[in-house]
Amino acid sequence: MKTFEYPQSAAWFQRAVQVIPCGIYGHFSPAPCPPVSAYPFFGARAKGARFWDVDGNEFIDYMCAYGPMILGHGNPVVDEAYQAQMREADSNSIASTRMVELAEYLVDLVPIADWAFFAKNGADVTNYAVMIARAATGRSKIIGIQGGYHGTSPWMQAPGHHGLIEADHQHVIRIPWNDLGTLEQAINRHANDVAGFIATPYHHPVFADSELPADGYWSSVEKLLRKHGIVFIIDDVRCGFRLHMGGSCEHFGFKPDLICFCKAIANGYPISALVGVEALKSAAAKVFHTGSYWFSAGPMAAALATLQELRRLDAPNLLREKGRKLNDGLVRIAKSHGYTLKVTGDPGMAYYRITEDPSLMLHQDWCAECTRRGAFFTSHHNWFLSTAHTDEDFQRTWDIADAAFEGVGSRD
Amino acid sequence: MKTFEYPQSAAWFQRAVQVIPCGIYGHFSPAPCPPVSAYPFFGARAKGARFWDVDGNEFIDYMCAYGPMILGHGNPVVDEAYQAQMREADSNSIASTRMVELAEYLVDLVPIADWAFFAKNGADVTNYAVMIARAATGRSKIIGIQGGYHGTSPWMQAPGHHGLIEADHQHVIRIPWNDLGTLEQAINRHANDVAGFIATPYHHPVFADSELPADGYWSSVEKLLRKHGIVFIIDDVRCGFRLHMGGSCEHFGFKPDLICFCKAIANGYPISALVGVEALKSAAAKVFHTGSYWFSAGPMAAALATLQELRRLDAPNLLREKGRKLNDGLVRIAKSHGYTLKVTGDPGMAYYRITEDPSLMLHQDWCAECTRRGAFFTSHHNWFLSTAHTDEDFQRTWDIADAAFEGVGSRD
Repeated sequence: MKTFEYPQSAAWFQRAVQVIPCGIYGHFSPAPCPPVSAYPFFGARAKGARFWDVDGNEFIDYMCAYGPMILGHGNPVVDEAYQAQMREADSNSIASTRMVELAEYLVDLVPIADWAFFAKNGADVTNYAVMIARAATGRSKIIGIQGGYHGTSPWMQAPGHHGLIEADHQHVIRIPWNDLGTLEQAINRHANDVAGFIATPYHHPVFADSELPADGYWSSVEKLLRKHGIVFIIDDVRCGFRLHMGGSCEHFGFKPDLICFCKAIANGYPISALVGVEALKSAAAKVFHTGSYWFSAGPMAAALATLQELRRLDAPNLLREKGRKLNDGLVRIAKSHGYTLKVTGDPGMAYYRITEDPSLMLHQDWCAECTRRGAFFTSHHNWFLSTAHTDEDFQRTWDIADAAFEGVGSRD
Repeated sequence: MKTFEYPQSAAWFQRAVQVIPCGIYGHFSPAPCPPVSAYPFFGARAKGARFWDVDGNEFIDYMCAYGPMILGHGNPVVDEAYQAQMREADSNSIASTRMVELAEYLVDLVPIADWAFFAKNGADVTNYAVMIARAATGRSKIIGIQGGYHGTSPWMQAPGHHGLIEADHQHVIRIPWNDLGTLEQAINRHANDVAGFIATPYHHPVFADSELPADGYWSSVEKLLRKHGIVFIIDDVRCGFRLHMGGSCEHFGFKPDLICFCKAIANGYPISALVGVEALKSAAAKVFHTGSYWFSAGPMAAALATLQELRRLDAPNLLREKGRKLNDGLVRIAKSHGYTLKVTGDPGMAYYRITEDPSLMLHQDWCAECTRRGAFFTSHHNWFLSTAHTDEDFQRTWDIADAAFEGVGSRD
């Protein structure tokens, strides 16, 4: 099986490092996926579940732009709705009626939602949720989960990251996932000063297995937060519309006060949303929060079309089914080479780890070998499927996975 | 002259308040421009320097989406470049070479820039600039200007706004504009703990006249900051590419370390940029900052096309010239009705105030009367011109302004 080379990517990266800090930064940085020589750095084209790099190599895309491309690249239904809106207006001097329609649609779609608010980044809405919690309660502290990611605002980043100061974390308490006792202790220790609790619907850190909520975890959390009048925020940026169309809380059977959406909401067009319960609407109205392009109509039209299409396809179940099929095959192939591929999290956005090597080196070598054969596998972040992934894609992926195990050396 | 009515806008607003906090929020909220009955709330279409509301009323657009639409709505050159990129890829799983080209272009265009970084909101880059200043210096304090606006992150908002806590401002010092003495005092008071100074290139608050830098202000600030090793940040989100293609600092003759761009950079497509000096590149590389759609290629292609087109047109001088023409006419018409229309700030993005009524009530009545005749004038925010505004637009605007003064009652 042919393995890819990346001379054009390397040449572009040499140009990039001259004029961009890190060359490529943030979650797109190639640094966390060594060996970097196995990965393409720059893309040229994308369609459906495939993308092509600047060297002309073709990849089956298992990251979907780290989540957004839930219907695949260049989805015709979404793109047409977007284009139709763009012919009329996008960024205008007054709001668009698409905003009202999208808010109405979300209020209808998401059981806990009585209202919706739109921004651009996931962090725009996690920040806003925290400000609403503080405005509504008059309290200061925010409790979050260790290793939980809600964006890169200073309060969200783990202490020790560059550019942070102590004050950024003064009122942020981080507790372990699935640990009710610590939550209760944190609440008791800061009696009457806990404004909000923020967590993802299940724990999906990087460099570690995903962890689903323990039995009864969410209902106990909900009860505890209600008892103490603490605003209950779910960061559904990564999982939203992948686990359940009504917010991932519906999948796990609980009711938060605020849900943060982004990524999959508009199939790659830039928009994020906060939805919330009626009781927080006036607090939300009091908090001033805005941005240059937050009223642009194009991405709102794309979000409407995306949500309608996801609902029509029953995307959460479709993705789960596709994920199970893909994962079963990968696990079987790993086993045939003497390895255990552990798959955690929701099947359509799972985290993968070869358990025989706790250092994760073997796992990243295997991901690299898959990537240079055309299955784009990052090694320490959950992957994302799209509804555009086909059985043919999976068969090709299994063949690649098989060859890649030969590449890293079989244990048989 | 016909005055507009807004039954459809009102009906949509009734729907909006059911499902969106405030109905329309942030800087698009109609609340700061009373009487709200004079303003359209929802737009249907936009082209060049005009937009149409949902009632079919046509407006000459003096806000340009609060800055972005510098080449007018639906500019064919920008839109074609954007569409060409969208046919290949937008949000992808790896970066686009458009990012490198755009960074190279900015480094070439902006004299102080040795590197560039891209995000979505203005606040993404003002936040990042502050984190870089802290990472580079190991210090905590940020000095800013009272009434300066850098986004809606908690540290940026004036204390007292809803959802803020004391810790948000613990390390932020706000000093008056154009006041070197206070800057020096602030630096001395916090000896060796001032990380950065952030300000707009000239002072453009809301509800108050714009104020240009006093003679020698910026060169003295620059000297003072250099002496104390304080990172010098210019928030050029509103002024960028309107005063000077090389950053507004070039217009005023000084050299900051970091410049934040947004709004006019891509004619309405969602992208913001931070550019900086070589000495801060490694600190920038250390600060982790990213967002869901920050690597999308479409807006990068739009930014490249916008900057090239602005350069070709010598947009800053063109806008200044158009602004002077518009403003001279408006001042003359005001005078003919016995009023003094004070125009402050750069002519192409000026702030207007009728001086005879310090309460600003008369001014807002006049803006409302203009708006309901088809010249979209907000009353307490600077306006924004585009290169698409024509002499015909201005003549029509002057006719409207004249009729509007009759509407509010002439002093003659």
